[in-house]
Amino acid sequence: MPHHHDAGTYGDIKLFSGTACPELSAQIAQYLGVPLGGRDIIKFPNENIFVRLHSSVRGQDVYIIQTTSAPVSDNLLELLIMIQTLKLDSAARITAVVPYLAYARSDKKDQPRVPITARLVADMMVVAGADRYITMDLHAGQIQGFFSIPGDVLTAFHILTDYFVAKRPELVNPVIVTADLGFAKKGRNFAARLGTSIAFVEKRRTGNDANAQAMTVIGEVNDRDVIIVDDEVNTGGSVAQAVEIVKAYGARDVYLSFVHPVFAHPAVERLRDLPLREIVTTDTIPIPENKRLPNLRVLSVSPLLGEVIRRAHEGRSVGEMFNE
Amino acid sequence: MPHHHDAGTYGDIKLFSGTACPELSAQIAQYLGVPLGGRDIIKFPNENIFVRLHSSVRGQDVYIIQTTSAPVSDNLLELLIMIQTLKLDSAARITAVVPYLAYARSDKKDQPRVPITARLVADMMVVAGADRYITMDLHAGQIQGFFSIPGDVLTAFHILTDYFVAKRPELVNPVIVTADLGFAKKGRNFAARLGTSIAFVEKRRTGNDANAQAMTVIGEVNDRDVIIVDDEVNTGGSVAQAVEIVKAYGARDVYLSFVHPVFAHPAVERLRDLPLREIVTTDTIPIPENKRLPNLRVLSVSPLLGEVIRRAHEGRSVGEMFNE
Amino acid sequence: MPHHHDAGTYGDIKLFSGTACPELSAQIAQYLGVPLGGRDIIKFPNENIFVRLHSSVRGQDVYIIQTTSAPVSDNLLELLIMIQTLKLDSAARITAVVPYLAYARSDKKDQPRVPITARLVADMMVVAGADRYITMDLHAGQIQGFFSIPGDVLTAFHILTDYFVAKRPELVNPVIVTADLGFAKKGRNFAARLGTSIAFVEKRRTGNDANAQAMTVIGEVNDRDVIIVDDEVNTGGSVAQAVEIVKAYGARDVYLSFVHPVFAHPAVERLRDLPLREIVTTDTIPIPENKRLPNLRVLSVSPLLGEVIRRAHEGRSVGEMFNE
Amino acid sequence: MPHHHDAGTYGDIKLFSGTACPELSAQIAQYLGVPLGGRDIIKFPNENIFVRLHSSVRGQDVYIIQTTSAPVSDNLLELLIMIQTLKLDSAARITAVVPYLAYARSDKKDQPRVPITARLVADMMVVAGADRYITMDLHAGQIQGFFSIPGDVLTAFHILTDYFVAKRPELVNPVIVTADLGFAKKGRNFAARLGTSIAFVEKRRTGNDANAQAMTVIGEVNDRDVIIVDDEVNTGGSVAQAVEIVKAYGARDVYLSFVHPVFAHPAVERLRDLPLREIVTTDTIPIPENKRLPNLRVLSVSPLLGEVIRRAHEGRSVGEMFNE
Amino acid sequence: MPHHHDAGTYGDIKLFSGTACPELSAQIAQYLGVPLGGRDIIKFPNENIFVRLHSSVRGQDVYIIQTTSAPVSDNLLELLIMIQTLKLDSAARITAVVPYLAYARSDKKDQPRVPITARLVADMMVVAGADRYITMDLHAGQIQGFFSIPGDVLTAFHILTDYFVAKRPELVNPVIVTADLGFAKKGRNFAARLGTSIAFVEKRRTGNDANAQAMTVIGEVNDRDVIIVDDEVNTGGSVAQAVEIVKAYGARDVYLSFVHPVFAHPAVERLRDLPLREIVTTDTIPIPENKRLPNLRVLSVSPLLGEVIRRAHEGRSVGEMFNE
Amino acid sequence: MPHHHDAGTYGDIKLFSGTACPELSAQIAQYLGVPLGGRDIIKFPNENIFVRLHSSVRGQDVYIIQTTSAPVSDNLLELLIMIQTLKLDSAARITAVVPYLAYARSDKKDQPRVPITARLVADMMVVAGADRYITMDLHAGQIQGFFSIPGDVLTAFHILTDYFVAKRPELVNPVIVTADLGFAKKGRNFAARLGTSIAFVEKRRTGNDANAQAMTVIGEVNDRDVIIVDDEVNTGGSVAQAVEIVKAYGARDVYLSFVHPVFAHPAVERLRDLPLREIVTTDTIPIPENKRLPNLRVLSVSPLLGEVIRRAHEGRSVGEMFNE
Repeated sequence: MPHHHDAGTYGDIKLFSGTACPELSAQIAQYLGVPLGGRDIIKFPNENIFVRLHSSVRGQDVYIIQTTSAPVSDNLLELLIMIQTLKLDSAARITAVVPYLAYARSDKKDQPRVPITARLVADMMVVAGADRYITMDLHAGQIQGFFSIPGDVLTAFHILTDYFVAKRPELVNPVIVTADLGFAKKGRNFAARLGTSIAFVEKRRTGNDANAQAMTVIGEVNDRDVIIVDDEVNTGGSVAQAVEIVKAYGARDVYLSFVHPVFAHPAVERLRDLPLREIVTTDTIPIPENKRLPNLRVLSVSPLLGEVIRRAHEGRSVGEMFNE
Repeated sequence: MPHHHDAGTYGDIKLFSGTACPELSAQIAQYLGVPLGGRDIIKFPNENIFVRLHSSVRGQDVYIIQTTSAPVSDNLLELLIMIQTLKLDSAARITAVVPYLAYARSDKKDQPRVPITARLVADMMVVAGADRYITMDLHAGQIQGFFSIPGDVLTAFHILTDYFVAKRPELVNPVIVTADLGFAKKGRNFAARLGTSIAFVEKRRTGNDANAQAMTVIGEVNDRDVIIVDDEVNTGGSVAQAVEIVKAYGARDVYLSFVHPVFAHPAVERLRDLPLREIVTTDTIPIPENKRLPNLRVLSVSPLLGEVIRRAHEGRSVGEMFNE
Repeated sequence: MPHHHDAGTYGDIKLFSGTACPELSAQIAQYLGVPLGGRDIIKFPNENIFVRLHSSVRGQDVYIIQTTSAPVSDNLLELLIMIQTLKLDSAARITAVVPYLAYARSDKKDQPRVPITARLVADMMVVAGADRYITMDLHAGQIQGFFSIPGDVLTAFHILTDYFVAKRPELVNPVIVTADLGFAKKGRNFAARLGTSIAFVEKRRTGNDANAQAMTVIGEVNDRDVIIVDDEVNTGGSVAQAVEIVKAYGARDVYLSFVHPVFAHPAVERLRDLPLREIVTTDTIPIPENKRLPNLRVLSVSPLLGEVIRRAHEGRSVGEMFNE
Repeated sequence: MPHHHDAGTYGDIKLFSGTACPELSAQIAQYLGVPLGGRDIIKFPNENIFVRLHSSVRGQDVYIIQTTSAPVSDNLLELLIMIQTLKLDSAARITAVVPYLAYARSDKKDQPRVPITARLVADMMVVAGADRYITMDLHAGQIQGFFSIPGDVLTAFHILTDYFVAKRPELVNPVIVTADLGFAKKGRNFAARLGTSIAFVEKRRTGNDANAQAMTVIGEVNDRDVIIVDDEVNTGGSVAQAVEIVKAYGARDVYLSFVHPVFAHPAVERLRDLPLREIVTTDTIPIPENKRLPNLRVLSVSPLLGEVIRRAHEGRSVGEMFNE
Repeated sequence: MPHHHDAGTYGDIKLFSGTACPELSAQIAQYLGVPLGGRDIIKFPNENIFVRLHSSVRGQDVYIIQTTSAPVSDNLLELLIMIQTLKLDSAARITAVVPYLAYARSDKKDQPRVPITARLVADMMVVAGADRYITMDLHAGQIQGFFSIPGDVLTAFHILTDYFVAKRPELVNPVIVTADLGFAKKGRNFAARLGTSIAFVEKRRTGNDANAQAMTVIGEVNDRDVIIVDDEVNTGGSVAQAVEIVKAYGARDVYLSFVHPVFAHPAVERLRDLPLREIVTTDTIPIPENKRLPNLRVLSVSPLLGEVIRRAHEGRSVGEMFNE
Repeated sequence: MPHHHDAGTYGDIKLFSGTACPELSAQIAQYLGVPLGGRDIIKFPNENIFVRLHSSVRGQDVYIIQTTSAPVSDNLLELLIMIQTLKLDSAARITAVVPYLAYARSDKKDQPRVPITARLVADMMVVAGADRYITMDLHAGQIQGFFSIPGDVLTAFHILTDYFVAKRPELVNPVIVTADLGFAKKGRNFAARLGTSIAFVEKRRTGNDANAQAMTVIGEVNDRDVIIVDDEVNTGGSVAQAVEIVKAYGARDVYLSFVHPVFAHPAVERLRDLPLREIVTTDTIPIPENKRLPNLRVLSVSPLLGEVIRRAHEGRSVGEMFNE
């Protein structure tokens, strides 16, 4: 794609990045051959976030790339403020590109008197002025229905399964294991892609103690290589339990695969201590050097996001990228 | 609750019923001691649905009870037209009571270029004038986030599990089985309530033929009584497969439990042919006489809905009904 | 217009058809030289309507053609679901082309506690995602004001009057008659175009019996050819009365002209039995073979709709088509 | 109704009047036994209209009475500014009481590239903060569908027809005549109430001159007393033509009856010169002394509006006032 | 810019003018080389304003120029009606160009129970259908935040200060004076641009009489040329007081500079009587011949507005016009 | 006010507090005699904020007290999430009580391509579900117009001026000084209340260096006690400059008075070093012990906020608290 091509339906393409994932943004920009737009993002002493664009986006098709990892509140507000700034500067179309969408696990009222914060996040993006959004591997696909604007919800599924398909010959009688029953269906898809069977870790509260849990593995893991799959690793607690129990059930090597490396404390400490052969994830969230364990493998989503932005801008199908 | 009590925050209570579930509506009215409001609902020769209320709802707290089972399109439009009629007649607050919400399975884009019809249904209810809604056992809890208005999403979980808890002594080493991996987490809750283990039926497409499927049972069912649990029975295809496979894996008696008896053709024929000890469901959808199999047990949700309407009207907690 | 021309303000043109009027849609597509977009429209056993587009509409200017004749509820929901599908697939602009808009007669509260369903229909189209609409001969022109989006409300007036202007030499002292006083003004326009006089059938309830009516003809019909004009024929009751009374007042040959052949039962039986020289209508609603009486003449609106779509897409005036 | 009664669903009742119809407002206040709220309405030298309420309306059920007769733009803006003032002062519910709604004749696009100003007026009332509205005899009943809020559209039909029913014995073979075919249906209702026949004045443009018109009377008026009925008298042009033509067709005494005395120049001059036995109208628009012709009879709508406000406030049916 | 250039993101450019500032509109059109679109704007005898466009604006980028000076209510409604007309005719984008925005001084509740009419004006423009707006020197910059649509708020600051910079050599020790402390900050900017000092007139109510005021000059004006600056001159009262007091404090020549010549009665009389060397303003509001005092200098904003419209249409930066 | 009184128009009163200002919330609760509602507010390891109410707010009139001082992003999001939680739990009315509203200084575009974040904050509060808001001393009164919901914008003006009125006898020839010309008008009001004169510090950039400033005092401060007034102290930079310059111009004792103690780094250090006789502020933002300088005087706004909440709940005037 040429740098300055003719205006499409929504004007020229323009990319901006928030402060949350500068490397990923730079890689997307490189993929597209479009420079990141200059902007100041300042946090004043009173903690108010201030944004100023270096040049006009009037009548242009703007993509603002910002993941919403920690610091979550700041990154989320920065995203919203950038969207409003673009809107007030009369952008023709504003697409929020949010590789990891915070609060996606607050997506239903599983008890009374709690929020559905993912809906609030969607509403705030719309009220700030977003016309579209692009995101990846939402905790539940239904969250797409929280938005009153169209969007592309992508998945790193192909990226992660391609990796294990390539590694398949080395694996001994592999089995996919999900640490959470809510991920059972996606785990099945992972297993189907690899042509393996699947097993589940079931947790159940015991007695009145909220923390006492009984764990079971449903399905066969004995003497098999295990790939534990999930959408994100937060504090690593579930993963640690899952590794422990599959090992107790006789698993051979254990791999871990997930999309979003949230890595909240003490995730990295836990992962370091676990007998994991390999940890495979993506760069939807930046991982600082000190959290990059030796057995960590980070696959980049930048070509995927770049290609989807290109197609969105040019009005071409995204679905056909996946033969759909 | 007296028939004509003092107006609460939103005026007097008033109940209306659409044409979809007259019996359930009558039972709710009886529970509350509040008569159903008179109304004409006419389908004209040109198929336009017409509604006329017999008396004014001005300044009142109105509940319109209408399930959205077959004929789905008619029942849905009838609901929407009634809501608008109530709004135009200046009701103070309108609550749509929809025991079974159609299109709840169209809740995400699992392939490109398809709708999220459940969001459309939510939007239509809001644009018609609903202020709140009450519904039961949505296919996915996230659908609550599709609504921009508050609502009470209830569950028949306690009604159904209470039934099996009472029956527990007769059951031999029972195990809960889900026919769909997407229901795994709710199946686990069912099992936890009964203190049983759980197993899963996994389906996987084989070869290029879209209909060729391999089935597996993950977990133990051999020589055990099996309770297959799901949220609804539509054509009964999944259930029939599940019964067949658990029998093949050595199950003893098989029970079936689900909330919504959609019973689309040929569900009843299939269920009749299956070796099911008992089929346990609710009356969120009316079941005509000719579909009432001898082994069918229908538990009523009317006390639950009635009590929730009462509490909603009186401004009292619904959550505490479930010790939450 | 070339098949794949350069994108205009709203992208390339794209046509889709619902299932209600496939022939009319095909004729419009032929007029435009643009193929109908591939799509699946499936009614599942549970009666949920499902839509899937065969290719992407991202950034395109899409026209979805769907009339809302019987089955009304299904056709209306199908239209709404298609609109949402197009919106979620990021169409640049969505125009609903609805040759016959259902519920247009529910356009005012002529008694208390009834709906204004035409407004609800308009609101639902907007909330589903329509940016514009094109429709024909609304029962009342005011319905255009129910929409919060722009639209083109066309008329078959010129098509129908052109037909009678051509036939004028054969007619003996013709007079236009309206069967409904609410159509008096449009009847006058019809008469003015033909240069004839006009007369009215007046109905009035007599006594307390809701069905007892006295009928009068106001104006001269004796020894004249009569053209009864209306916007639609529903069950044919009003028309049958009008024919009877003008014959009783001495009319010669009687013609019937109207835009929308709703033909609800028993319209065709009634029309068959009436002494009508000719019945002239349009194809805004498809007429099955078994309803095509020998004296029925169907004039096509497809060139009109096609031309308006072309102009809407190209940003050219529609009004000037009628020298306005 | 006592002055300070207990708060209903929407708080205490409170009445305000704009400057357009002080007498009518005072009569409504007297009917209700509720004083008009104090307020300043000032037009600054720069023509900006300023409003200040003398006391708080927080949590109250407020009715703002303002007709939108000349000066139309000022009266309309004054209404909108008062609504916003009430909203910003946290009124619980705001009802705009607009006896005559301006721009009701701009209710459809009967030619291309014109506005539907009645919809704009409805939208502006809603955006200013109105929760409900009460108005009378809209030019077209469909305008109720322009509002996204509920309202009561009343009619002076009973007031006007009661008057002529009482006068019926003096009338010689009376016939109702409408000056405008768009009023034919309402004219029929008038005739039915009086038990008389009906006739119509038809106007038709002749030749290329926009102003050249041919007039005809359709129906019998010869040697009969004629009551010309309409919804409003604007400049009196149509009425003058109608009187002239019915006289030419042999009418005896001619009466004129209409709801809204708009009386734009030169209506009063025209009416003064016409051979009218009596002119019967209402006070939805104030008529200054110098426009009160000797044969003018003004019937008050204040008891009707007062009673409807009372019932709206108390949450009682309005429809049953008319045995509906 | 060529007259008929290729369509940009929002179609071809099209200009319309209301009736409020025909000369300014013509100058803007001339600057752009784009003719004003033909339209009828009629005030009917019943004072309803009617608009008809002479040709279609379908798919075009339309700018409607209308200032909202006296007659304020009429001009404001005319603007709103034109916007809706353009929207209903399917313009691709509508920009309201309002050189002087009425009601900008009703921008906050500085006492209880008053409106914020500027917000109402913004809301009405949006609900009528405006997509963007362009205006000049709002009384408070915050009013931009009242709009939910983007806009360009321009300033005549450079035009006015350029004028005085050129005149600087003739001025003796000049000082800027603001007549209103609310204008202090903008006055400072004026002074900074000219490199002069600044002084303030302070008014304070004395005693209980609302009109009794004590005036003070804070800062040095003795033996200096004074330039009194403000955003508008309404009745001229504040200005007259300011001139009087600075003269009393020993000022030499006094100049007056302001953007909007509202000139409500008796502004011109007051200005005529004041010892003002020169009155410098702009043409955001047309000044009739009889108000053009000999010492009045009117600088045109038409090149500024023209250039901003051009850039808005072409999607180019407006900010860089001012080296920002 | 009794603890559990009868429901008003919007149900029973209920108070909640966020985590930002627990002491102020407790004092307000004590003033009202209404306990703070129990709630959990948890920041998960992944930084997602979670809220759970201990009991139902269904049908109640809820006030959520949360200031938006540092940590600003967290406190703001916590407020929004609490509002949504209350809405989803079907509160009858939700009032956000925000003593200090963050981002109020981002209230206009004083340069191109920047946000108006205060409008975004207002929009987010509305989209989260707030029905009303209560706040204090907005940087600009116009911000009230950013909200599409009603609110009470209170001022600590009376609290602060009362304090100095009482201290008046000790002060020697006092003068009010504003450090910012944008505060000139409010400074004048302060001076008028105390019956003193006023002076202004004017800052002006010099040369090309963005930080080089020339400072002037306009008005008399020599040999007078000075009270510097502002709306907030952020980093204390402006205040420090102002103290320095008035001292240089000969001021005697210097006092500092402002509403919001933002106290961003290094405000406290700067204030400690300044020759200030007394620093008078309020508790709209909590001041930790280590920031409480010996010469700091904190006046509480809790009685004011408590009384306004009481009146808002009871539907009584707030304005009359101030004799307005």
